[in-house]
Amino acid sequence: MIKVGIVGGTGYTGVELLRLLVQHPQVELRAITSRGDAGMAVADMFPSLRGRLALNFVDPKEADLEACDVVFFATPNGIAMAQARVLLDAGVRVIDLAADFRIKDPAEWEKWYGMKHAAPELIEEAAYGLPEANREKIRTARLVANPGCYPTAVQLGFLPLVESGLVDTTRLIADAKSGVSGAGRKAEVHTLFAEASDNFKAYGVHGHRHLPEIRQGLSGAAGKPVGLTFVPHLTPMIRGIHATLYAQVTQEADFQALYESRYRSEPFVDVLPFASHPDTRSVRAANVCRVALHRPQGGNTLVVLSVIDNLVKGAAGQAVQNMNIMFGFDECAGLTQIPVLP
Amino acid sequence: MIKVGIVGGTGYTGVELLRLLVQHPQVELRAITSRGDAGMAVADMFPSLRGRLALNFVDPKEADLEACDVVFFATPNGIAMAQARVLLDAGVRVIDLAADFRIKDPAEWEKWYGMKHAAPELIEEAAYGLPEANREKIRTARLVANPGCYPTAVQLGFLPLVESGLVDTTRLIADAKSGVSGAGRKAEVHTLFAEASDNFKAYGVHGHRHLPEIRQGLSGAAGKPVGLTFVPHLTPMIRGIHATLYAQVTQEADFQALYESRYRSEPFVDVLPFASHPDTRSVRAANVCRVALHRPQGGNTLVVLSVIDNLVKGAAGQAVQNMNIMFGFDECAGLTQIPVLP
Amino acid sequence: MIKVGIVGGTGYTGVELLRLLVQHPQVELRAITSRGDAGMAVADMFPSLRGRLALNFVDPKEADLEACDVVFFATPNGIAMAQARVLLDAGVRVIDLAADFRIKDPAEWEKWYGMKHAAPELIEEAAYGLPEANREKIRTARLVANPGCYPTAVQLGFLPLVESGLVDTTRLIADAKSGVSGAGRKAEVHTLFAEASDNFKAYGVHGHRHLPEIRQGLSGAAGKPVGLTFVPHLTPMIRGIHATLYAQVTQEADFQALYESRYRSEPFVDVLPFASHPDTRSVRAANVCRVALHRPQGGNTLVVLSVIDNLVKGAAGQAVQNMNIMFGFDECAGLTQIPVLP
Amino acid sequence: MIKVGIVGGTGYTGVELLRLLVQHPQVELRAITSRGDAGMAVADMFPSLRGRLALNFVDPKEADLEACDVVFFATPNGIAMAQARVLLDAGVRVIDLAADFRIKDPAEWEKWYGMKHAAPELIEEAAYGLPEANREKIRTARLVANPGCYPTAVQLGFLPLVESGLVDTTRLIADAKSGVSGAGRKAEVHTLFAEASDNFKAYGVHGHRHLPEIRQGLSGAAGKPVGLTFVPHLTPMIRGIHATLYAQVTQEADFQALYESRYRSEPFVDVLPFASHPDTRSVRAANVCRVALHRPQGGNTLVVLSVIDNLVKGAAGQAVQNMNIMFGFDECAGLTQIPVLP
Repeated sequence: MIKVGIVGGTGYTGVELLRLLVQHPQVELRAITSRGDAGMAVADMFPSLRGRLALNFVDPKEADLEACDVVFFATPNGIAMAQARVLLDAGVRVIDLAADFRIKDPAEWEKWYGMKHAAPELIEEAAYGLPEANREKIRTARLVANPGCYPTAVQLGFLPLVESGLVDTTRLIADAKSGVSGAGRKAEVHTLFAEASDNFKAYGVHGHRHLPEIRQGLSGAAGKPVGLTFVPHLTPMIRGIHATLYAQVTQEADFQALYESRYRSEPFVDVLPFASHPDTRSVRAANVCRVALHRPQGGNTLVVLSVIDNLVKGAAGQAVQNMNIMFGFDECAGLTQIPVLP
Repeated sequence: MIKVGIVGGTGYTGVELLRLLVQHPQVELRAITSRGDAGMAVADMFPSLRGRLALNFVDPKEADLEACDVVFFATPNGIAMAQARVLLDAGVRVIDLAADFRIKDPAEWEKWYGMKHAAPELIEEAAYGLPEANREKIRTARLVANPGCYPTAVQLGFLPLVESGLVDTTRLIADAKSGVSGAGRKAEVHTLFAEASDNFKAYGVHGHRHLPEIRQGLSGAAGKPVGLTFVPHLTPMIRGIHATLYAQVTQEADFQALYESRYRSEPFVDVLPFASHPDTRSVRAANVCRVALHRPQGGNTLVVLSVIDNLVKGAAGQAVQNMNIMFGFDECAGLTQIPVLP
Repeated sequence: MIKVGIVGGTGYTGVELLRLLVQHPQVELRAITSRGDAGMAVADMFPSLRGRLALNFVDPKEADLEACDVVFFATPNGIAMAQARVLLDAGVRVIDLAADFRIKDPAEWEKWYGMKHAAPELIEEAAYGLPEANREKIRTARLVANPGCYPTAVQLGFLPLVESGLVDTTRLIADAKSGVSGAGRKAEVHTLFAEASDNFKAYGVHGHRHLPEIRQGLSGAAGKPVGLTFVPHLTPMIRGIHATLYAQVTQEADFQALYESRYRSEPFVDVLPFASHPDTRSVRAANVCRVALHRPQGGNTLVVLSVIDNLVKGAAGQAVQNMNIMFGFDECAGLTQIPVLP
Repeated sequence: MIKVGIVGGTGYTGVELLRLLVQHPQVELRAITSRGDAGMAVADMFPSLRGRLALNFVDPKEADLEACDVVFFATPNGIAMAQARVLLDAGVRVIDLAADFRIKDPAEWEKWYGMKHAAPELIEEAAYGLPEANREKIRTARLVANPGCYPTAVQLGFLPLVESGLVDTTRLIADAKSGVSGAGRKAEVHTLFAEASDNFKAYGVHGHRHLPEIRQGLSGAAGKPVGLTFVPHLTPMIRGIHATLYAQVTQEADFQALYESRYRSEPFVDVLPFASHPDTRSVRAANVCRVALHRPQGGNTLVVLSVIDNLVKGAAGQAVQNMNIMFGFDECAGLTQIPVLP
C-alpha cells in the first residue's frame, strides 16, 4: 500500500483518478486538495463516489502532501511546475497530468503555453509518461509528465511507422476528433451542451498545444524531425478520441505484422485485425488504445485509426499505469475495467 | 467458482451481463448461446470484450447448459418459459431477465404479453428478484424472475411509503424517463439515432407492460390493491432511468428517516439527503439505486426521485446480485464498479 | 414595416428572435444592443446569420431605441424593469422576454426573483403575453410580459381543464422536461456538454420561479386559487419542452371535444387525436404547441401531454406572435416555419 | 406554379423535400408515393407537417406522375433507373436524389452499387446536379442526378484548388464526418441511438460509394485523373457533414482570394474569413455550404474545412435548387431558411 495525494481533484481528470484509485488494491488515498472547495465532501461534488470515498477536499496548505509516496497533479497548466520541487525534495514522487513537463525545450513550452516556466531545471529530469515508448525511464523517475490525450492517441498510432522509417515522415497528417470532456470542467460558452451538442467543428487548426508534444515524441522515435499537420475537432460525445492518421508509404512492408509485433507485449494497446473500424465506445471508461490499419484501394496512403478514452488512457488511467510502473506493481493493477458498451 | 451459462447474449442485457460476469471472482463462464450468431467470437460482436473473453457464441443445442450451476436468460419474452423446465429438472438454477415469470396471474400475463404462457406451473415457484423486497425467497429459489427496469426504479422509490401506509395508495403517480438502451438492440425505426436524439416523448401512456408488474409489487407491499398511473418517456441518453414519483400524504411522519431506516442495510440503495436531485449519471454503469425525497412548498404532495442504470440495477446487475444471493456469495461480489462520471 | 430594436441580443432568445425577425415581412431591424460585445458584427457571433443580417451590436447608449416602434428585451431578469419606462414614455411599445412583468404581485415577484422591483407601477399595466388566454389585452398593450417557457407549455396544456372546472384544481401535477437551451447561453458548469449529455435529472423541485407564474395563470383561468406541484427536469436535448400533466377528473365530459373546441381557432395550438404521443421534435424550431389527451386504463386520472420548442413558442416565437397582435399584422406573419424533423 | 410529384416520401430526404416544397412559392405538390404506406396521411407519419400538408401517400400505380412537371425520386438506389424512362417520355423532368445517374461509367457504377444498371442509355444524358460546377447543363436537363452528401461537401471544398491546378492532385485527402441521418431512415442496428450516440467511428475506409463520385467530379474539374483518399466517419449528431480536406501546395497563390473569387456569385456557398472554423450547426436546416481555408504553421499543407447540412445542401435543398434552375425560377426560391442555431 502506498500513500497517494491528489492536487486539484475537482476537474474531470481528478474525478477519473479518484474512480480508478479508489478501486486500486495497493493505494491508500490520503488527501485531495482544492483551493476553492476545501471542506466539501468529495462525494458531494461527485455523487458517483458516495459510499466509496469518505474524504473531504482540503486546502493545499493543510494537505501534508510531503507524507505521501506519490502526488498526482490534476491541475491546470502552471501549478505543478510551481509545487513539484518541494515535494521531490521531500522524497515524494510526482505525476503531472497537466503539460508543465511535457516539452523538453523550455522556450518552445513558453511559446505554446504563454507563461514563463517556473522550474526549467526539472524538465530534463522529467520522464515522458508514455509507457509504450518510455517504460524504463518511467520506472525510476521521480517526476513523470503524463502525456496529453491527443498525443497519446496519435503517437501510439504512428509509433511503429516512424520507428521503422517506412513512411514519409515529412508530411504526416493527424486528423483527430475528441469528446467534449477533453476541454475540462471549466464553465465556458463553447462547451455548453446547447453549443456543442448536435454539432461538429474543427478548432485550433492554426496550431494546438498538443502539436509540439506530438512532434517531439514522433521526432524522437524517428531519430529526426518529423513534419506533422494536426487538426483537432470537437465531436458531440463525452469521452473518446478518434485519431485518423495518414502516411505515405516509402517502403513496402507487412504493416499489420509490424504493428502486431510492436505491441505484442503491451497490455494496453490492442491491434485490431487489418481493415477494422474501432469505435470510441469500445474503449469507454477503460485504459486501452485500439489501433487498426487500412490501405484504401491498395494505394500509397496508409491510414491508421487509433481510439482511446481521453480521460483514461489519455489521462488518469495512463497516470495510474505510470504509477504502477514507478512502484513496481503489476502494470495492470487497478486498470482492469472492461469498457462500458453501450 | 460456479459454472454459468447465458442464453441469448447478443442484446444489451447480454453484453452487460458479460461485462459483469467476466469480472466476477466466483464465476466461470461456460457458454453463451445465440441461434443467429453461433460460431462468432463474442468479442467480434462486442469489441469492448476483446482480450477479456475468449468464448464464441454457440448454438443452443450444443451449449450443454445442463452442466451449468446457473443459467441466465437474456432473451426476448417467451423463450425462458419454454426452456426453463428442462434446466430446472437437471438441477440448474435459472435467472430470467425477461418477463416470463414476473406476473403471478397467468391470465394477466397473457393479456399484457400477447401470448400463451408455456409454463404456468413454474410461475408460482419463481421468486420475484427484487432483493430489497424479497431476499429470503430469492436465497433458496431455483427460478428467479429478474424485475423490469422501470419496476425496479419505481418500486424502490415507493416501497417505504406503501409498506408504511402513510400515503394514499389509490392514486400514486409514476412519471418515468428511460434512456434508449431500454428498448433493446433490435433494429427499429423509432429508436434510430436520428429519431430519438435531440427529442423527447412519452409512449405507452394507455398501458405499458411494466404497469401490472409494478402494481403487483406495490400491492403486495401495501397488503391491498394500489392505484397507479404510470407514464414512461423516452429520453435521449443511452443508459439510465429517472422515476419521478408523486404520492399524497395521508399521515404525517419523518419520511426521510423512514427511507433511511428502510434502506440502511441495503448495499445497493442509497438514500440521499432530503431535497437532493440525483442525476442518472451518478449511477451510470453501476448497480445502485439512488433515492431522494422532496416536499414541494411543504404541501401535501410527496415527491420521490429514484434513479438507476436500466442495464445494471435495472437488469444485468440485479441479476448478478440475485445470483450472489442464491449461491451464498457476498452480495456485492462482482458489483463494486464505481459509476462512470462524466 | 415597423422599426424594431432588441436589447440584449447575445443569448439564445436573442439569436432566435433574430432568426425570426430577419424573415418577417413587416419588420425592419434597427438596433441590437450588447454592452459587452458592442461593435462586433452580429453574424460574427452567430454565423448562422452570415449574409442575412448586416447589423453590428451597439452599445445601449448609442442605440436610439426611442426611434423604434417596438423594443424586445432579450435580457436577464431585472433589465427591462429598469429601462422600460423611458421607452414607453417615448411612445415605444415594449415586449419583455424576461420575467420582470410576469407576476402581478410585486412582493411575490421579489420573493422569487430575489431583487427589488424597479417599476412596480408598470406591472399592473403589463399584459401577460399568452395570446390564447389574453389576446384582447395584448392587442392594445404598450407593455407585454412574454411568458416563460414552462408556463407556456403547462398553461396551454391545463387551460381547457381549469377553465371548465371539470377537474380537481387543488392538486394538479406538472412534470416538465426541458432541453438545455432553456438554461440560456451563460457559461455554467451544470449545463456543460460533459455534465448534461447522456444524463437526466430533476432540479428546483423545492420551488422553481416558473411555479408562481403558472399558478397565477391557472388561478386566473379557474377563477380561484389552484394547487400545483411543478417538477422541472433537464433532458439532454437542445430545444424542446415536454410537459406531462396530471389531473383528477371530478366531472365526466368529452375532454377531447373540449380541447378541440377550445383551440379550434388558435393558429399555434394543435390538438392531436386522442391518445397520441407528441414528440418535441415535431415542433422543433416552429411556433407551435401540440397537445394530446390520455385517460390511462380509463381511470380517474387525466394525462395531458404538451410540447413546445422552448425558444420559439416558449420565447421568441411567442414574442413575435405578440408583436403581430399588437401591430395588427396577420398573427402568423413571420411564423410559418415548418418544424425541422429529423 | 409547377406540378410536383415525389416518389418515395418516407425517408429523411423525402420529409426534408416536403418541408422545403411546402414552403416553395411556385410549387404545387400533387403526389407522394409509397408502396408500403399508401393511404396513410403524410402528416401522420411526419407530425411536423400537421396542418401544412393534406396529402396522403399514394401507391405508385395510382399517382398519375405523368401529369407532373417534375418528379423527385427520394428512393433507395435502383428505383429511379427503372422508372425514369416512362416519365421522361411523358415529358416529365426527373430529379433523382439517389445514386442511379451519378456515375458516368456504367461498369464503375455497377461495381460500386452491386446491381445491373437498368437504363445505361440515360446516364450520359443526365446532368450532374452540382450547380456550382454544372449550372448550364442543369438548366436544360430533363434528368438531373442530384449529388451525394459527401460529394457535395468535398467537391465544393476542393473545386477551386483542382480547377486552378495549384496543388498536387495525385494525393488529395478528404477526412469527412457525417451526422447519422446520412444513413437514412432504415431500421439497422448500427444506427440505433444506443449504438451511435456518445460514440465515434470511421467506416468504409476500404472504399465508400461516394469515392468514385467525388473522384469523377474532381477529375473533371482538374482535366485529369485525381488521386483521392476518402475516409468517412459517423459522428453522433443528426444532421451535418464536416469535411476536412488536405492538399499539398505545388504553386503558391492567394488561396483565400481564389476561393472568394470562385464563389463570389454563388448564392449557396459562403467563403469564411481565412482561418475560420465553421461548425455544422451554422448551416443546420439551410441550403448553404460554408468553406474556410487554413495553412497550419505556414507549411506546405493547405487545409480546407467545408460544412453542409447533409439533408439540405447535401440532398433535398440541392434538389430544389436544381429544380429552380431547371424551371427558370429564382435560384433561391423556397431556400431562404436561416440555419437553426442553437
